[in-house]
Amino acid sequence: MRIGVIGCSDCGAKEAELARETGRIIALQKHILICGGMGGVMEEACRGAFENGGVTVGILPGDDEKDSNRYLTAAVPTGMGKARNILVVKASDALIAIGGWYGTLSEIAFALNIGKPVVGLNTWECGIGGRKAGLIEAASPGKAVEKAVKAVSGQFREKR
Amino acid sequence: MRIGVIGCSDCGAKEAELARETGRIIALQKHILICGGMGGVMEEACRGAFENGGVTVGILPGDDEKDSNRYLTAAVPTGMGKARNILVVKASDALIAIGGWYGTLSEIAFALNIGKPVVGLNTWECGIGGRKAGLIEAASPGKAVEKAVKAVSGQFREKR
Amino acid sequence: MRIGVIGCSDCGAKEAELARETGRIIALQKHILICGGMGGVMEEACRGAFENGGVTVGILPGDDEKDSNRYLTAAVPTGMGKARNILVVKASDALIAIGGWYGTLSEIAFALNIGKPVVGLNTWECGIGGRKAGLIEAASPGKAVEKAVKAVSGQFREKR
Amino acid sequence: MRIGVIGCSDCGAKEAELARETGRIIALQKHILICGGMGGVMEEACRGAFENGGVTVGILPGDDEKDSNRYLTAAVPTGMGKARNILVVKASDALIAIGGWYGTLSEIAFALNIGKPVVGLNTWECGIGGRKAGLIEAASPGKAVEKAVKAVSGQFREKR
Repeated sequence: MRIGVIGCSDCGAKEAELARETGRIIALQKHILICGGMGGVMEEACRGAFENGGVTVGILPGDDEKDSNRYLTAAVPTGMGKARNILVVKASDALIAIGGWYGTLSEIAFALNIGKPVVGLNTWECGIGGRKAGLIEAASPGKAVEKAVKAVSGQFREKR
Repeated sequence: MRIGVIGCSDCGAKEAELARETGRIIALQKHILICGGMGGVMEEACRGAFENGGVTVGILPGDDEKDSNRYLTAAVPTGMGKARNILVVKASDALIAIGGWYGTLSEIAFALNIGKPVVGLNTWECGIGGRKAGLIEAASPGKAVEKAVKAVSGQFREKR
Repeated sequence: MRIGVIGCSDCGAKEAELARETGRIIALQKHILICGGMGGVMEEACRGAFENGGVTVGILPGDDEKDSNRYLTAAVPTGMGKARNILVVKASDALIAIGGWYGTLSEIAFALNIGKPVVGLNTWECGIGGRKAGLIEAASPGKAVEKAVKAVSGQFREKR
Repeated sequence: MRIGVIGCSDCGAKEAELARETGRIIALQKHILICGGMGGVMEEACRGAFENGGVTVGILPGDDEKDSNRYLTAAVPTGMGKARNILVVKASDALIAIGGWYGTLSEIAFALNIGKPVVGLNTWECGIGGRKAGLIEAASPGKAVEKAVKAVSGQFREKR
């Protein structure tokens, strides 16, 4: 399964720890980690995966591989700027959002819009007219990966 | 100025009224209306503009012009699916969000992410860690257009 | 019908004349002119259409309307760079290529790849293994528009 | 270095052999192979690389990994259809075109348009007004990889 990890390129210590642990668990469970390839949450998640033998793919905003983090199995420069967020979502079966700001919100919203599950760890809460956006809440990286996998399996079941 | 109007393709009577009035004011002030070209809020806004001599551009998700609303000066099929939301944002100087659901949320987030002003009429509220997303609130279509124009003018001033 | 006119942003006098006359005929026949919105062939075609009451749409590579030609009913900034060529093709029912260089070749190829008719006026010739690319040749702007319209009508017939 | 290999998803025996040998050499020289992830030339190139310990990335037109070939280290679904050709080019430092049809021509043209070197093995020849498109010809897979690497190194030198 391909799990996207999304969050700020400039994150605090708490988010960094959550991201690295999430990456580690993704790798140990033999999933592929998809991300935006930059620093912060993306880098920490990749590091956690990379150091545990995982495969990591970074879909970069720019044209140049050099602007990516050091823990990528494969860098995919797109030259699309922040619009590459859409490709991070498209390339993932499910997403785990850790903290984040507007870029992360755009990925959460686009994922929900095309029906991909999003698990949140200390991330955005959004509502309109009394209804809340359908993020799946998780209390830890372990739970987040578990819920992401479960949500995708559930989708496969529904399709049959 | 190009003003994007975003919202659901399947909207209620209240949103329809807000959208049509917003379109009317955009046209009377000689702005160009940008939207996703489909029904609901998009159609009502286009209708309001079109019937008042305005220019309306619909950036369509599909490949076929036939799936658009009837009030478009120019339809731009993209074949990009919901990823065309990004182009609606790119093509607008400022956006007015009326109600909406996940697609609208993705447009709001992408606009904020690339620094475009978004004015909200009965739309999403989002927060993270005590901070709120920077939408500009407006109480009426007239105020929404006024604030959108002001926000863009302010940006131009800042650039100098 | 939407007819795309493609060619260099920096063209010679002969191409400029062909482009302006092509734009004029498109407008007189009440078709919408789609192009990349910049100078050269794009500007001359738009001018020919605009001065004859036509509707012209420019799909811009950059983020800013100011970098477009002056003869656009609607400018659609995309921020996608040269990748916006794909949108010029997607938004057109048929294309007329006038001269051009690599950008024009990419549009011709992408159009042929997704099955859109391309009419050529003094443009690229391409071949592989003895086969030639399927451009429709035309000897004048009038013939080019005529053949573009015919090719699209033929497609509609085939679909039924 | 990332080397893109482009060609038809439905290729003949000669092209298959060229593609597999090209993939093998890319892997042995520790380059990363980028491609469109489907069958034919793409699959054979991936197979050649994969069986020799190489890293292969497939940028898929569809939304589903299942529609890709079996020799990918990482599949990146895009849901962009044939427009994903642009991402194959963006993600590669240089490209090797083997045979091919319109899709390959669109990739060659887009690469030349944004200044990426393209090496051709039995592929398209294009000309306009007496000038030929600037593909680098190669007589064998070994020469093709050598020339691709050299072209990119030359670009780096020029930039300094």
